[in-house]
Amino acid sequence: MDMYQNINQLARSLHQESVDIRRTMHMYPETGWFEMRTSAIIAKRLTELGYEVLTGRQVCREDTRMGVPSPEELEAHYQQLPEQGTPMEYVTEDMREGFTGVIGILRCGDGPVAALRFDIDALPMTENATQDHRPFREGFASRNPGCMHACGHDSHIAMGLGTARVLSEIREHLHGTVKLVFQPAEEGARGAKGIAASGHMDDVDFFAATHIAPDDTIDDGDITPGTYGSLATAKLDVEFHGKAAHAGGFPEKGCDALQAAAHAAIALAGIPRHSGGMSRVNVGTLRGGSGRNVVPDYAFMQVEVRGETTEINQYMTERACAICEAAAAMTGCTASVSIVGEAPSQVSDLAFVERIRDMIQTHLPQYRVSTEYNSRNWGSEDIGFLMNRVQAHGGQAVYMRTMTSMPSAQHTTEFDLDEKALDKGISVFASIIYNILGES
Amino acid sequence: MDMYQNINQLARSLHQESVDIRRTMHMYPETGWFEMRTSAIIAKRLTELGYEVLTGRQVCREDTRMGVPSPEELEAHYQQLPEQGTPMEYVTEDMREGFTGVIGILRCGDGPVAALRFDIDALPMTENATQDHRPFREGFASRNPGCMHACGHDSHIAMGLGTARVLSEIREHLHGTVKLVFQPAEEGARGAKGIAASGHMDDVDFFAATHIAPDDTIDDGDITPGTYGSLATAKLDVEFHGKAAHAGGFPEKGCDALQAAAHAAIALAGIPRHSGGMSRVNVGTLRGGSGRNVVPDYAFMQVEVRGETTEINQYMTERACAICEAAAAMTGCTASVSIVGEAPSQVSDLAFVERIRDMIQTHLPQYRVSTEYNSRNWGSEDIGFLMNRVQAHGGQAVYMRTMTSMPSAQHTTEFDLDEKALDKGISVFASIIYNILGES
Amino acid sequence: MDMYQNINQLARSLHQESVDIRRTMHMYPETGWFEMRTSAIIAKRLTELGYEVLTGRQVCREDTRMGVPSPEELEAHYQQLPEQGTPMEYVTEDMREGFTGVIGILRCGDGPVAALRFDIDALPMTENATQDHRPFREGFASRNPGCMHACGHDSHIAMGLGTARVLSEIREHLHGTVKLVFQPAEEGARGAKGIAASGHMDDVDFFAATHIAPDDTIDDGDITPGTYGSLATAKLDVEFHGKAAHAGGFPEKGCDALQAAAHAAIALAGIPRHSGGMSRVNVGTLRGGSGRNVVPDYAFMQVEVRGETTEINQYMTERACAICEAAAAMTGCTASVSIVGEAPSQVSDLAFVERIRDMIQTHLPQYRVSTEYNSRNWGSEDIGFLMNRVQAHGGQAVYMRTMTSMPSAQHTTEFDLDEKALDKGISVFASIIYNILGES
Amino acid sequence: MDMYQNINQLARSLHQESVDIRRTMHMYPETGWFEMRTSAIIAKRLTELGYEVLTGRQVCREDTRMGVPSPEELEAHYQQLPEQGTPMEYVTEDMREGFTGVIGILRCGDGPVAALRFDIDALPMTENATQDHRPFREGFASRNPGCMHACGHDSHIAMGLGTARVLSEIREHLHGTVKLVFQPAEEGARGAKGIAASGHMDDVDFFAATHIAPDDTIDDGDITPGTYGSLATAKLDVEFHGKAAHAGGFPEKGCDALQAAAHAAIALAGIPRHSGGMSRVNVGTLRGGSGRNVVPDYAFMQVEVRGETTEINQYMTERACAICEAAAAMTGCTASVSIVGEAPSQVSDLAFVERIRDMIQTHLPQYRVSTEYNSRNWGSEDIGFLMNRVQAHGGQAVYMRTMTSMPSAQHTTEFDLDEKALDKGISVFASIIYNILGES
Repeated sequence: MDMYQNINQLARSLHQESVDIRRTMHMYPETGWFEMRTSAIIAKRLTELGYEVLTGRQVCREDTRMGVPSPEELEAHYQQLPEQGTPMEYVTEDMREGFTGVIGILRCGDGPVAALRFDIDALPMTENATQDHRPFREGFASRNPGCMHACGHDSHIAMGLGTARVLSEIREHLHGTVKLVFQPAEEGARGAKGIAASGHMDDVDFFAATHIAPDDTIDDGDITPGTYGSLATAKLDVEFHGKAAHAGGFPEKGCDALQAAAHAAIALAGIPRHSGGMSRVNVGTLRGGSGRNVVPDYAFMQVEVRGETTEINQYMTERACAICEAAAAMTGCTASVSIVGEAPSQVSDLAFVERIRDMIQTHLPQYRVSTEYNSRNWGSEDIGFLMNRVQAHGGQAVYMRTMTSMPSAQHTTEFDLDEKALDKGISVFASIIYNILGES
Repeated sequence: MDMYQNINQLARSLHQESVDIRRTMHMYPETGWFEMRTSAIIAKRLTELGYEVLTGRQVCREDTRMGVPSPEELEAHYQQLPEQGTPMEYVTEDMREGFTGVIGILRCGDGPVAALRFDIDALPMTENATQDHRPFREGFASRNPGCMHACGHDSHIAMGLGTARVLSEIREHLHGTVKLVFQPAEEGARGAKGIAASGHMDDVDFFAATHIAPDDTIDDGDITPGTYGSLATAKLDVEFHGKAAHAGGFPEKGCDALQAAAHAAIALAGIPRHSGGMSRVNVGTLRGGSGRNVVPDYAFMQVEVRGETTEINQYMTERACAICEAAAAMTGCTASVSIVGEAPSQVSDLAFVERIRDMIQTHLPQYRVSTEYNSRNWGSEDIGFLMNRVQAHGGQAVYMRTMTSMPSAQHTTEFDLDEKALDKGISVFASIIYNILGES
Repeated sequence: MDMYQNINQLARSLHQESVDIRRTMHMYPETGWFEMRTSAIIAKRLTELGYEVLTGRQVCREDTRMGVPSPEELEAHYQQLPEQGTPMEYVTEDMREGFTGVIGILRCGDGPVAALRFDIDALPMTENATQDHRPFREGFASRNPGCMHACGHDSHIAMGLGTARVLSEIREHLHGTVKLVFQPAEEGARGAKGIAASGHMDDVDFFAATHIAPDDTIDDGDITPGTYGSLATAKLDVEFHGKAAHAGGFPEKGCDALQAAAHAAIALAGIPRHSGGMSRVNVGTLRGGSGRNVVPDYAFMQVEVRGETTEINQYMTERACAICEAAAAMTGCTASVSIVGEAPSQVSDLAFVERIRDMIQTHLPQYRVSTEYNSRNWGSEDIGFLMNRVQAHGGQAVYMRTMTSMPSAQHTTEFDLDEKALDKGISVFASIIYNILGES
Repeated sequence: MDMYQNINQLARSLHQESVDIRRTMHMYPETGWFEMRTSAIIAKRLTELGYEVLTGRQVCREDTRMGVPSPEELEAHYQQLPEQGTPMEYVTEDMREGFTGVIGILRCGDGPVAALRFDIDALPMTENATQDHRPFREGFASRNPGCMHACGHDSHIAMGLGTARVLSEIREHLHGTVKLVFQPAEEGARGAKGIAASGHMDDVDFFAATHIAPDDTIDDGDITPGTYGSLATAKLDVEFHGKAAHAGGFPEKGCDALQAAAHAAIALAGIPRHSGGMSRVNVGTLRGGSGRNVVPDYAFMQVEVRGETTEINQYMTERACAICEAAAAMTGCTASVSIVGEAPSQVSDLAFVERIRDMIQTHLPQYRVSTEYNSRNWGSEDIGFLMNRVQAHGGQAVYMRTMTSMPSAQHTTEFDLDEKALDKGISVFASIIYNILGES
């Protein structure tokens, strides 16, 4: 039998296992740098499958991590792990300090190095709790309040571990090295930079990653082998400091940090569009003030900007910084802006895109390849750090889409996905590796 | 010896006891409707002093309470009481449900009814934790994070209990009834309405209350026997509901509740001034958005408006509501506004003000009466509900100021006071009662 | 016959003449520093009545004029004078350059100096042109587009010239000197400063001025002999300079001065209220941008702030300046702020107020004196410059109100007044002078 | 000799004549619907060259004109024509009413219909008047204050009349019909709709238009034969109506239309970007308020939105309308929005683009064709109405760029161009016509 069909059958035979993995991840979602249980389960599974496993400080270089939670928050999270079915023997001291993420390596003799990346973190949202929402109805909705796998990274983990199993089962047919990178803190664009800085991409010849995507809007296939133009991005934390005063007694003595933040929020939305390409700006959160009758002396905003090119992103970042400082001055306050996440723009290698397209059309004809097989992409992804590093030394990289139906868009509290996508992802990923390492 | 000087000596002899009460209150501050420990300590003390004691639903009529915390929050607070030195035998089931506040009654035969009011709640602020700040330096700073006696109600409690003791010691010289009202939830103007609605003021002939005030700005005395014109106020909670969307992928699909709130915050500050008198508006807190890369679908604001008259306050309230709804429509959102606190304006009875002035000048010459002994007052106080109720049936009411030095203004995190003010408050309050009930 | 009743009858006999003067002024209104026709008619009339007449640079010191129009605008206005029934022989070269305003002096031997002031300028508004509006219906609406006597200074001129006539008729009964000051550019608080600087007040013992006011709101009399607390004010012209760009082609290259001005306008409205007293702020006009598809590189705002005290006005001015600069920085622009008008706060001398009250109650009983005869006043008036100058050397000054019914408020396009007020004003003003100069 | 080289030589021989035409147009610029002098000169010239000439209501269908000035403005402009060297015998009554624009038709027997379009209107900007600016230095700067050919339509007119002359000289070599459309009111996207509605495009087989463009930024050639994706656009006039009040006396009685407009201006800038493609928004002008001390009761804004597709433009338009209405409600005002200009998006026919590219490369090798010969274009042009109409019945249409150096960008007050571009434009346009009509 054709090895690709063999891979496909293996993937389908893992369906229930993949669903179980996805759902246990969905039930206990962990946001960036908190993925302790997630990392422990991945490390355990990769170990069982015979992979060489890197964790903790081996994965992410310490000085390049961005947006790391406070030690208190990390510790509080750690304390709840035992009651959530965590294999505590795999939770290292590093993980407890927020060094999450796992890399599994399968060495299969000489040959090229092929790497895949799966992101593993959740979002700070509270999952919908109505009967309309399948995860709630079927009992696998998030147990972690304020935290939800609303972007589908739970399915990425399941695809990654399924792919790991398929590859371990066909390892004697592979010639070269497989690296499976389970990246933390993709949301907020905080995790990839440190993995790139650790050099894990420096020997990679072929690098692929995927993200699930809705099957009804952008693409017309089951798989888009490559995408063009993820947006460069910067994540800004902005603090406004003012002066409190009794709002009834002496309003003229206050310097209102909340008014300053509101001025900034509105002006940020109005940064002029750039003629050079797409731009974006979002004031995602704002917290300000201490009490109703006190002139607010503090406000905090989480902002992100994006640009189709690094230059446009830079333009947006500079305008945003200037606005925050000016807005603070409007009410006699001061502002401080910190960059807590960033990602460059990125472009898939067309040769690798076409190789994957041809492979799917030839060997996995049950999956339709998108007509626009190198389609536009207006999200942001810190995978650019990894792709750029691979491409910098001559390797090839692609960022793909795996389509699935969704009852509600990603990043909404009603998000869910069709778990048949898990089999498809495993099939395609394992086939890509076999295509590179198996046919020489 | 003159009875007034006797009262004064008693007050001074209680200095250390008063300081101790103030400091234990300062260490465990409780915001409105959470004053369980506070109420228990007051109830215990009044009972020991021989007062008839009302608590729980006896104090505040249930349907008129505003801005009550959720059952979960109340219960969580209740759980921490034992470890904070609370006399748990005085914590009733009502208190556990947020029915805080205590009324102590001392019946001394026939005669008029004279009532005093002391407010007991703290503010949602985190106390300064540096060596510059005496409460921190001397070890009696707040142990309840995010909660602080920053308005001086801790000193009011100490004055109230000291006055209770002095009056109990001179009770054979009194003819009539004393009511000491320890009111919850004055901050946010939420507690007095229910006490008034319960009818506790309906037999009161003379009613006095005081607030500490800085000795260096408004007044030039130690005591201001009366004030003119506390501002009427309304406290508004505003919710903005929008539609989330991925900020990078589909910004056009979102309806940004945080932008709506920011527009509202800025427009609220700009409500036109009123030619009829003082007005105020403060957006005290704003919380919006769920994540940096999600178009915010929710925002929440705590707002207050004030007016020198009830009409001006009504004007401010109406403009504020219209602004919130319009601001929501700016970004395709909806707004809902709830009134969670309110107070009318109030005016002290000049006859009673002058009676107190004369009494102090004659019998307590060690205290200077403010030149402007019925001075302007631009704070708000829900005591208006109590004063208006007393005045409605022909009683007389005053709202006074007790001056003290403060290293930092009220409602700031560095607030502290000179504890000598405690003796002064006790002296004056007990003397007022004696002046009414003792000399007939 | 009592001289006061004689004065009163004289005033009433002048009714038609006064109405005619008011209406010709109403038909040809002139805004500040443009009052050439107005000044010429006044100068002509005063000359005919035997007054010594000062005009041009004799009235206002050149270097203290504020907000003077451009030479081109002045000249354009001058050119239209002949066709508007102007006595051109009284239009001096000074007037043509914008040195408007007239002072008439009547010397009646030894005695005190008593001065009256009448302001003469109109507002830049377009008068209502519907049949509902009496001036339009009766044919005496403004013929000068964009210009209207909407504050009633036309009636002040008529009162001034009527008073001049009455005084000239009773001059043998007067002992001392009368000064009638017809002041230009009161709107915008631009004219009085220069008259004060010229020293015309330095020998004045008694100084009175009046403004018509609505009879249904503030006061309950026909005359308020004095007012308390006109607001101090500053008039600010603000220019925003940015950078133009094609709005479709290169929006990112622009620095949008109009957005900056809009940010400023909104933030100015939100300057925190002052606990020390009344404050005001108004962005009266905004002009920005050159074309629909060009990023605006220029915007201009006319702003005014006010305060119950000079300190509060100073606070408002400082906040306003800071806001304009910060708002400019929001969009990469610059702002420049010029102070083009100002007035101090002012207070009437109570002794003079009571003298006028007593005189009216005794001698002109047909007129009711307001109960609150020294009432609050939240307008602004540069008369403060004149009053303060009189008071500085020991003279007494009052600012009064003459009540009349109005179908629509002052400063609206439907404003009109009851011309019976003219007789009343003449009676009262002439009586004040007689009271001072006639009864010694 | 090759006919193309012949055309090229003719074009060069006309250089001085073309410069003269461009400069007389530059000196007397006329904005949309005011192009009376411009149209008269064009009509005269086309008549002299033997063209059949359409003017007035023959050109633009009356009911489809947008953004037409008032009769008073048109008449005032008409009055100044004689003193500006206008051939008054060519100024028709229609032109006086704002029916500007001219179509010249050259009938050369059977064959296809080929049309060219030249836009003729100026911008409402005041031209730079410093020695640095060549038109000022050399004496041909605008004599019409507030009006300037800052987009280069003066050069388009010169190209059009030069092309008209060349074609008339080679008319015996042409087989078919030439239509030269001199379109009014392109700025603001107001003129093309009416020409399309008049049916002038309904028999056109080939249609070309051009715009000058800077030679240093977008393109690398002398000519771009076609462009992709002019933005669809809508031009909105927005009126805000409020309620005036004296800003000092009764600010609470006003409804501030200027504040409403400022809120709208800022919110419009913040309309969320669209993931489907480019969007734009510009508040080009704002005029509000009548006087410094009057709460503004009126404000007027000129706004434009754009979108890469008609759908995106529709999204922007709908959001803009909603914002204006909500902003008005913020201050108790009302808003009315009128659409005064619009243009659809448009795409050049690739076959025609390539035909022109090949023609230039073969026959006019002195001109470089842009590498990206069908390049992106983020301006807006109402030529889409004409192109879409041609394409609707199977004709082919292109929108091209003619590059020239510019000392300052289009739509700036320092704009100028290199007049060598005139020869190039005439060569290329005449060659296109010859390519279509001459070689059959």
